[in-house]
This record gives sequence, structure tokens and C-alpha cells, in this order.
Amino acid sequence: MRKAWVNGEDSQTASLLDRGLAYGDGLFETLLYECGQVRLLDLHLSRLQAGAKRLQIQLSMGTLQDELQGFLQQARGEGLLSDADKAVLKIILTRGVGGRGYRFPEKTVTQRIIQLFDHPGYPLQHRKEGIQIRLCKMPVSVNPALAGLKHLNRLDNVMARNEWNCSDIQEGLMLDEQGAIIEGTMSNIFIVRDNILITPSLKRAGVAGIMRTHVLDMARKHKVEICISESVSVQQLYDADEAFVCNSVLGVWPVVRLESKQWPVGRLTQLAQLWIQDICSD
Amino acid sequence: MRKAWVNGEDSQTASLLDRGLAYGDGLFETLLYECGQVRLLDLHLSRLQAGAKRLQIQLSMGTLQDELQGFLQQARGEGLLSDADKAVLKIILTRGVGGRGYRFPEKTVTQRIIQLFDHPGYPLQHRKEGIQIRLCKMPVSVNPALAGLKHLNRLDNVMARNEWNCSDIQEGLMLDEQGAIIEGTMSNIFIVRDNILITPSLKRAGVAGIMRTHVLDMARKHKVEICISESVSVQQLYDADEAFVCNSVLGVWPVVRLESKQWPVGRLTQLAQLWIQDICSD
Repeated sequence: MRKAWVNGEDSQTASLLDRGLAYGDGLFETLLYECGQVRLLDLHLSRLQAGAKRLQIQLSMGTLQDELQGFLQQARGEGLLSDADKAVLKIILTRGVGGRGYRFPEKTVTQRIIQLFDHPGYPLQHRKEGIQIRLCKMPVSVNPALAGLKHLNRLDNVMARNEWNCSDIQEGLMLDEQGAIIEGTMSNIFIVRDNILITPSLKRAGVAGIMRTHVLDMARKHKVEICISESVSVQQLYDADEAFVCNSVLGVWPVVRLESKQWPVGRLTQLAQLWIQDICSD
Repeated sequence: MRKAWVNGEDSQTASLLDRGLAYGDGLFETLLYECGQVRLLDLHLSRLQAGAKRLQIQLSMGTLQDELQGFLQQARGEGLLSDADKAVLKIILTRGVGGRGYRFPEKTVTQRIIQLFDHPGYPLQHRKEGIQIRLCKMPVSVNPALAGLKHLNRLDNVMARNEWNCSDIQEGLMLDEQGAIIEGTMSNIFIVRDNILITPSLKRAGVAGIMRTHVLDMARKHKVEICISESVSVQQLYDADEAFVCNSVLGVWPVVRLESKQWPVGRLTQLAQLWIQDICSD
């Protein structure tokens, strides 16, 4: 971590009584910094605002935006960030410090944590030639009232990601109890069949990723037929013409292999990569 | 909070990079200190050890036990705890500090956090005369591979507990998507029908509470018939002869009211209260 702020000031620590630590009582965003700007910032901030509303976490968007700009400016001033840099920003929002017990504290100060990390530096070939994926045994946690949120309760993703330790495989898919595909451990999944872009509905589980939203927005703009499917089975994935995973940091990675099944890097996948590259040329 | 240790030393903070904060990547225990001792300590430590194994979190039980004794001794020496005191101990275990990303860090130091809190000081009448409960709208998160664990992903409990703010109601029940009762926001639930002690199975969701385990152990010892039910419906609760909730700090509270339905303080409920009082006279 290059730098961190808590509520607008340099800090490396949180209170042991922070409800983010005690209960995962909060939200986060992971943002790509590239070409001197934060990518898809409006979408990230909108999701954070909507999430805070759903969790009844008080949040002044003006304050957060000011802090984010101040943080970036200070990081640049300290030589920790340059316009030529690729980096990752993380915003964590917690309900704040409280006593013991699930009940909201009577008075609570939302904690706004901003962190600056190195970019993971994924190989270009993941984007160009595609990746191999696997199916995880760890099921996704199902809760329709929390689904879609990028909240801090991510133990299912953590355990799913740690089922493999082989560098040939870049992502694992998480299924619900019924065996429907919901998402990747750190990404959302799209499949293409007969020129229709299909992605699992996240009404019961999963994180509604910002890159997923952006890809869907762009598909609509480019008149590509989309389907938010209530249930995408593993068989549907096997039968797909193409598949890709996406998130804010990695962009779009074609899926070219799952066990013995292979796919080409598909036409719609490449289109999606073009759509999101548009951001870079803003 | 009266006092806290992190890895055997006084501390009030955790790293912003602690995976407990980032992902809820850890476990906790809430223990009752009473009559100069920690109640049901062996059961709590066994659950923690089993949970750490399931989550692949490294844990030296010897170190933790030594720290717990050292912590209590120091708290007594500092006048923060006396044998006559009732207090609450909390142990949080996290996978430790890591970078960004769900993957386990290559090298990681498990964080052992011990905290000492005031006892909540529940009114005696909750135990004697019983409590009123409600049904929560927030469903319990379902994940068979994480069910039973007292992990740090507790946002469902948090949101359920905050659906009401009226002091007449002491607990809320959390249901799964199918409407089966799983647990209370901070307790486990038992119902009695025809002298059989029934409690929901926690194979798909919920926390396997230490007091629940203890009540079940004592019921077996006292030859009371028990049933771990795959599905306890709200109708079954309405039709029950008696009901109670339990956890390590509150013990056993009779349930005497849910909406318009009323129950007496039942015979098996009172028996359960006697069973667990035995602990106090050790």
C-alpha cells in the first residue's frame, strides 16, 4: 500500500471497535487509476451511495469526493502517483466505531478509508489470448436482501479464490446451491450464445460489478441483445459460443478454457474490449 | 471497552490492511466472565479451533490460551476485572495483514485480538418472565460451506437487528429464503412440542452457538428427547408448547410473545435454565 487516508487524514490503522472489522459492516469500491484519472468514477460513487443507502450508512458524497480529490492530489505531490501511472484505489466505508452487539450505535461516524495500491500488473496475454477458469466448490453466499452490494462480507470469495494455487488458472466461478453460475471470485461473467450477451442475474447473490454495469450499458448503446438470466447453468456455459469475465481493474478477459472445454476469443468479447477501451481515450 | 490486546500486547487498533476489516476474513467468540472464570471456555476454544481449521487460519491454541490467561491476569492487576465482576470477553481471530485481493497472502500472521467489555446488564425479568420476539424481514445468508461458523461476515445479523428499535422486543428471528426459522439475530432458538426439544439445523445457515451446544449436551445428559430439524416453520413455532432463545452471555430467555401469540414460561425452558446454571456453581 502506497498511501492511506482515514476521514481525510493520513492513517494506517482502524479502531479495534470499527464495525467493519467486527461484522463486515460496510462497503468497498476498487477503482482503476489510469491515464491520470479514476476510471468509471461516477459509476463507482453511485454504487457506493446506493449501497450506503441500503445499509443505512450515513455518507456525504460531497465530503467523499473532496477527500478523493485531495488524496490523489497529495499522492501526486508526494511523488506516489503520476499521470503515467497505473494504480488501484480502494475506498472502504464502514458504519464506524461502536460497542459490542449488532445494533447500530446511537451515534456513529462513518469511516471513509481511501487506499492507494500498486496495479497488479496482469500480463497482456490474459486480455489478448484469454484465460483458463475453473469451477469453485465454495458456493456463493445467498441473501436476496444483500445481493448486488459490494459489502465487506466476502469470506465466500476469499475461500473460493484459495481453492487453487496454480498460475495457469486465472479465475474461478462461484455457483449457488442449485448449481447456477453467479460470478467469478473477483469478476462477473458473461457468456454469448447466438449473438446474445448473457449474464447471471444478481438478485439473490453476487456483486453487481461496475465493469459489468458498464459493459451492459455499452451493449445497450450498441444495440447488442442482452439477457440478464435468472439462472445460467454450467451446461449453458459449456454450450456458449464465447465467454468473458470482467472487473474494473482487469477490464475484460476472454475465457478460452474450462477443464477440457475450449473457446476461441469471441467477436462480442473483442467488441466489449473495444467498448471499454473507449474509456481510456476520454 | 475496558481493555484490548492484539497478539499479546495492549493495542486499540488494527491495520487497515487486516483481512478481517477488508473481507471479514476471520472468526470471533463472545464469552461470559462470571464468578471469577470464563464460562464454557473449552467449548468456545474448540469452536474457534474448528473454525480456524475450516478457514485455513493458522492458530496455536497454546499461545491463545496463554494470552487469554495473561490478559485476564493483567486486567485483574489493573483493577479492570474482579472475581465478583460480570463481564464479556471477545476474541477475534483474523487471517492477518495482506495486500489487496482475495487470495491468501503468502506469508500471513494470524491476528489474535482479545477485548474486555462491560456486561450488557440485561434485566433479570428477561430470564424470569421471558421476552417478546419478532420475525425479521432480513433473511439469513445461506452458504452450506460456511454455515455454523461464527465468522466475521455478520451483515445479515446487523441489518436484521436494526429492523426494530423498541425496547419491548428483545430478539428477532431470522428466516431463510424458504421461510424456515434459522436463528435469532444474536441467539439460537429452541422450541418444545410434546416434550421434544427442537432446534433448527444449521447446515445451510446460522451460527452454531456455544450455549446451543451446551443446552443440547445437557438435554442428552438428562435424557430429554431432542430433534435437530432440517426445517422449523413459523407455523411450528406458533404451534409450539414453549420456546426459548439462548446465547453465551444471556443464558436462556423464555420466549413468551410473538405478535399476538403468547406462551407461558415452559417446563423444559426452566429446566434448560437450571442445566446452564450448573455452570455457575462449578
